[in-house]
Amino acid sequence: MTDAASVWRDVERLRAQAPLVHNITNYVVMNLTANALLALGASPVMAHAPEEVEEMTGLASALVLNIGTLSAPWITAMARAGVAARRKGIPIVLDPVGAGATRFRTQTARHLLRDLRPAVLRGNASEIRALATAESGTKGVDSRHAPEDALDASRRLSSEFGSVVSVSGPVDLIVRDEAVVRTYNGHPLMPRVTGLGCVASALTGAFAAVADSPLEAAAEAMAVMGIAGEIAGDGAAGPASFQVRFLDALYGLREAEIAARLRMESA
Amino acid sequence: MTDAASVWRDVERLRAQAPLVHNITNYVVMNLTANALLALGASPVMAHAPEEVEEMTGLASALVLNIGTLSAPWITAMARAGVAARRKGIPIVLDPVGAGATRFRTQTARHLLRDLRPAVLRGNASEIRALATAESGTKGVDSRHAPEDALDASRRLSSEFGSVVSVSGPVDLIVRDEAVVRTYNGHPLMPRVTGLGCVASALTGAFAAVADSPLEAAAEAMAVMGIAGEIAGDGAAGPASFQVRFLDALYGLREAEIAARLRMESA
Amino acid sequence: MTDAASVWRDVERLRAQAPLVHNITNYVVMNLTANALLALGASPVMAHAPEEVEEMTGLASALVLNIGTLSAPWITAMARAGVAARRKGIPIVLDPVGAGATRFRTQTARHLLRDLRPAVLRGNASEIRALATAESGTKGVDSRHAPEDALDASRRLSSEFGSVVSVSGPVDLIVRDEAVVRTYNGHPLMPRVTGLGCVASALTGAFAAVADSPLEAAAEAMAVMGIAGEIAGDGAAGPASFQVRFLDALYGLREAEIAARLRMESA
Repeated sequence: MTDAASVWRDVERLRAQAPLVHNITNYVVMNLTANALLALGASPVMAHAPEEVEEMTGLASALVLNIGTLSAPWITAMARAGVAARRKGIPIVLDPVGAGATRFRTQTARHLLRDLRPAVLRGNASEIRALATAESGTKGVDSRHAPEDALDASRRLSSEFGSVVSVSGPVDLIVRDEAVVRTYNGHPLMPRVTGLGCVASALTGAFAAVADSPLEAAAEAMAVMGIAGEIAGDGAAGPASFQVRFLDALYGLREAEIAARLRMESA
Repeated sequence: MTDAASVWRDVERLRAQAPLVHNITNYVVMNLTANALLALGASPVMAHAPEEVEEMTGLASALVLNIGTLSAPWITAMARAGVAARRKGIPIVLDPVGAGATRFRTQTARHLLRDLRPAVLRGNASEIRALATAESGTKGVDSRHAPEDALDASRRLSSEFGSVVSVSGPVDLIVRDEAVVRTYNGHPLMPRVTGLGCVASALTGAFAAVADSPLEAAAEAMAVMGIAGEIAGDGAAGPASFQVRFLDALYGLREAEIAARLRMESA
Repeated sequence: MTDAASVWRDVERLRAQAPLVHNITNYVVMNLTANALLALGASPVMAHAPEEVEEMTGLASALVLNIGTLSAPWITAMARAGVAARRKGIPIVLDPVGAGATRFRTQTARHLLRDLRPAVLRGNASEIRALATAESGTKGVDSRHAPEDALDASRRLSSEFGSVVSVSGPVDLIVRDEAVVRTYNGHPLMPRVTGLGCVASALTGAFAAVADSPLEAAAEAMAVMGIAGEIAGDGAAGPASFQVRFLDALYGLREAEIAARLRMESA
């Protein structure tokens, strides 16, 4: 059961344990996701060389794979790190950035999903639909669909691969088989900051390192994203001051803020 | 004719259409340029894998090529994406970062210019001079020359390749054959923020996706850069708070600010 | 002798000369380190292609090598640039990010140290210990040790390779053979911002381009980092506003601030 108490419990676990989160992610968001992980209390590391990914994953408590600026050698690194993560039994989060936009992204995401069966698949509605169906036509890396439009696709992917599917948008959907959690927190400036979806995936990895289940981890991460977004939005003059305030809010997040703001429903 | 009315018209078009701008750019500025494009109202995507660049360009409304941290595989990707952009008929913007500093950069920029004949070539005065002449000696990626020193070089390049040449500096020069537009907006902190030249190229790409001509697009982008810089400079404590305020200013840019501040001359 | 007067003298030299600092560094910190170098007054360039690194190093006044997201082709580039730097007689700073975490990082750092004998080796205590001994077990890229625990290791490495060894932490140690400088400036938020260690290495490179000795350069860079950190910490709401304030503080650094705040000891 995910509620304000479990969100706070896992924020406290994160701050106490500072789990190492190994990220193989895209160039655009590396700095921001590292800062978000640090602000939350986790310990980020980025490493992609085939010579070291397995060893680095062996030190980590979670692995986050993000195909936002993918290329063949990085996919190889992701696959290797993924196998090491499964062997060690640590959770994998996959962010299929741009699936549906190009065949290369759709196929790469499908292969990683099938071969690694990540604990959590976290994307936007267009990406999730593209992975579940033959549908394409994502516009670049932005979504043309609302999360509810990806509910069926999420159920199908969850059932086929055993993953929690976390779909971000104005309302976030977190799906595992028949279970659905919806989080309503957030702020309209969030899609105007590049990489906040990727940050959601990185924080999902951090929560997965300490939470009792991938479903809780995914829901807690989206809740924390949305609550920090709301705090940041109060007084932001635009997307850049919003981003600064968002990271500061993650760092300073207090139990009372979560209790007062959390809007989450389980069905 | 570029004036405050046309600048505002194209800002509104950008916000309404959110054109997808495909960037193959350098590692240093990826995050900043993506955020600047989002703040202005465009939709950025970064993709460089040979397996997908043509398909991604096929979805885009403009292509921005930037050689700031070039390497052989990225040049291949730029060439392929460029051919796809020409085939589709979308504008290409080329930023020859560091041309003149190393032979590799000068030659790569010349090849891309010759083969792709970009709608806009946007650089600093040293880079533009290096491309037009045998001159070298750029100091790294900063300019040793004022834009006026690159007027002849700009005219020659424009005439040879059919490109608009946009030279940034304290006064920006935008040149097409005999036509010259000068924009006088800006702020002294701008050269102290890394990648604002690259941002100018990215925004030029966004404007080129909606403007009536590449000359207008290039002039409007420099005008918006300078005006946002002036707004940001009021109250900035240094280059980092300037950058935050600059992105917020792009996001919030209003017609009245453009009308009040624009200083542009056509000759 | 490093003191407030020499720190200020070299800040002024940096601002007057704007030395070009060639960085071959990791993806996570490229933007931040470029901005920090610009804020301080230096001129940054990032270039890693084998086709141009020697030529770019040939233009530079210092070379900074950082293995934070290393891969085989980048190591080749570092080695080539390093040889060019030695030939030209400009200082090299090596940041062995994550040495001790994976064999690939430890071995790469050892090879670069042995082959290039950098003017300054700058890392955290775990990294320095890992290079001096067979010890491993660094947790990702964060240190498990205080700088004092790396004093013996620093002395050994300094003596073997002729490098100044600069170890960052709550108290920074700067070691050359028997000489030890300690700087006590800093702020608790600094480890919560990704890449401030890498920034310290980049600023060490900038100071090395103008200071009278590598020992002075390394100590001055750590002093300036710590003082800017203290100024930034006054009024920061969290790590992201701290980072903005830190860069602004570097940019605006005044003699009186250095004189009032510097806490440095030579033994």
